Amino acid sequence: MIKKIVLIGAGNVATHLGSALCGAGCDVVQVYSRTKESAMELADKLSAEYTVSVDGIRCDADMYIVALKDSALQELLPMLVKGREQAFFVHTAGSMPMDIWKGYLSHYGVFYPMQTFSKQRAVDFATVPFFVEAGGETELKMLKELAGKLSPKVYEATSEQRKYLHIAAVFACNFANHMYALSARILEKHHIPFEVMLSLIDETAKKVHELPPAKAQTGPAIRYDENVINRHLDLLADVPDMQELYEKISKSIYKQK
Amino acid sequence: MIKKIVLIGAGNVATHLGSALCGAGCDVVQVYSRTKESAMELADKLSAEYTVSVDGIRCDADMYIVALKDSALQELLPMLVKGREQAFFVHTAGSMPMDIWKGYLSHYGVFYPMQTFSKQRAVDFATVPFFVEAGGETELKMLKELAGKLSPKVYEATSEQRKYLHIAAVFACNFANHMYALSARILEKHHIPFEVMLSLIDETAKKVHELPPAKAQTGPAIRYDENVINRHLDLLADVPDMQELYEKISKSIYKQK
Repeated sequence: MIKKIVLIGAGNVATHLGSALCGAGCDVVQVYSRTKESAMELADKLSAEYTVSVDGIRCDADMYIVALKDSALQELLPMLVKGREQAFFVHTAGSMPMDIWKGYLSHYGVFYPMQTFSKQRAVDFATVPFFVEAGGETELKMLKELAGKLSPKVYEATSEQRKYLHIAAVFACNFANHMYALSARILEKHHIPFEVMLSLIDETAKKVHELPPAKAQTGPAIRYDENVINRHLDLLADVPDMQELYEKISKSIYKQK
Repeated sequence: MIKKIVLIGAGNVATHLGSALCGAGCDVVQVYSRTKESAMELADKLSAEYTVSVDGIRCDADMYIVALKDSALQELLPMLVKGREQAFFVHTAGSMPMDIWKGYLSHYGVFYPMQTFSKQRAVDFATVPFFVEAGGETELKMLKELAGKLSPKVYEATSEQRKYLHIAAVFACNFANHMYALSARILEKHHIPFEVMLSLIDETAKKVHELPPAKAQTGPAIRYDENVINRHLDLLADVPDMQELYEKISKSIYKQK
């Protein structure tokens, strides 16, 4: 059973996951981050030690959860595992294959919570799906058990599936949020509070619980209402990047019909 | 006070608005649609008469609500108002100015419910913001009163503001929904149920109740994680339209930072 955990990383994922693990009775014993301030802040929150040097990372934890930007993970990996070859390492990256651990370690896996984490907002882990993968059956069982403490939605996913899950999540979350951001930019420019958009945003999200998104589509593009589309393109003439996105997304909507 | 209403149009907006008006104690006396089937279906639902000819539209209603595609509204307008010059006409189109009525009528306005309406899904009008505009004070008062029966969120908006509201709504709703649809396309191709994406979608929508969307942004584009972005672009090589959108939206996210 996993009890003593070291967190490698102190960003949004590490912060929320660390708090949730502590809340579920795990013992986060140490936080590593290159940035002293981040390391201290999260360690303090979790009543853990902190270190800013890879050499200072403890060797006695049941599990090492690596929640770093992909490029940092790749760069740090050889140093992280050095002297800890018998330890159990997992990463939380949607887009990284499990095999990055292969050859370095005997016990490894992936522990991917598919959610959007911002420092300023608490996350209800009970609604977060976890996608787990492991090098061995024992490790898989341990990961499922650990994820199960945080959420009822625990799925096995291969690295191949997770790659596409991650792209799908970028569209459904990051890109959808950017559409909100572009909407907010328009409203701000015309002195209309973003608040008026919230019930539309909520309903758009709720609809796809009942209808497949392609069937839930409404608006000028799906009707191919050229009058409206052209008027909108004219109105966006002073923001060419938004104008281009408007045109390309409208075409993509109509094409899918 | 507005009691007897004629609905011009039998699409999604007319259908939902008609039901809500009936529920609020108004009397929808007639439905006009070019398509007999649509006219009959909605008239039946609202216990109203129906007509498929503009000449058959009654002349004794307190209000005519025109919920047509913009191009149809422009085309039909002269015929709709003919012989009904003293009647009170409103349209429900976000992108159409109020002035389309000017010169034809003495009593006119705009009654714009900003929501995404699909036939298959019931709408809770209590959460729908209404944006109203009218040619005169009396008409404005009547529209506010009518909208107030359906929703507590009634705002005055000029045609100029409504133009931008509508573009903002296209981004926040139609385009956000298309991001869900593209996400669903990826998942379907890899035999992953769309359902796993729902809690991420919900959280993304909920976040912007607390944080401005630009501050809520997460994912590879805002971090400019080139490793992930390039890997995703490679994985989308067989769907060039999605690949192009991925690249352009990522750049737009990073630029806004």
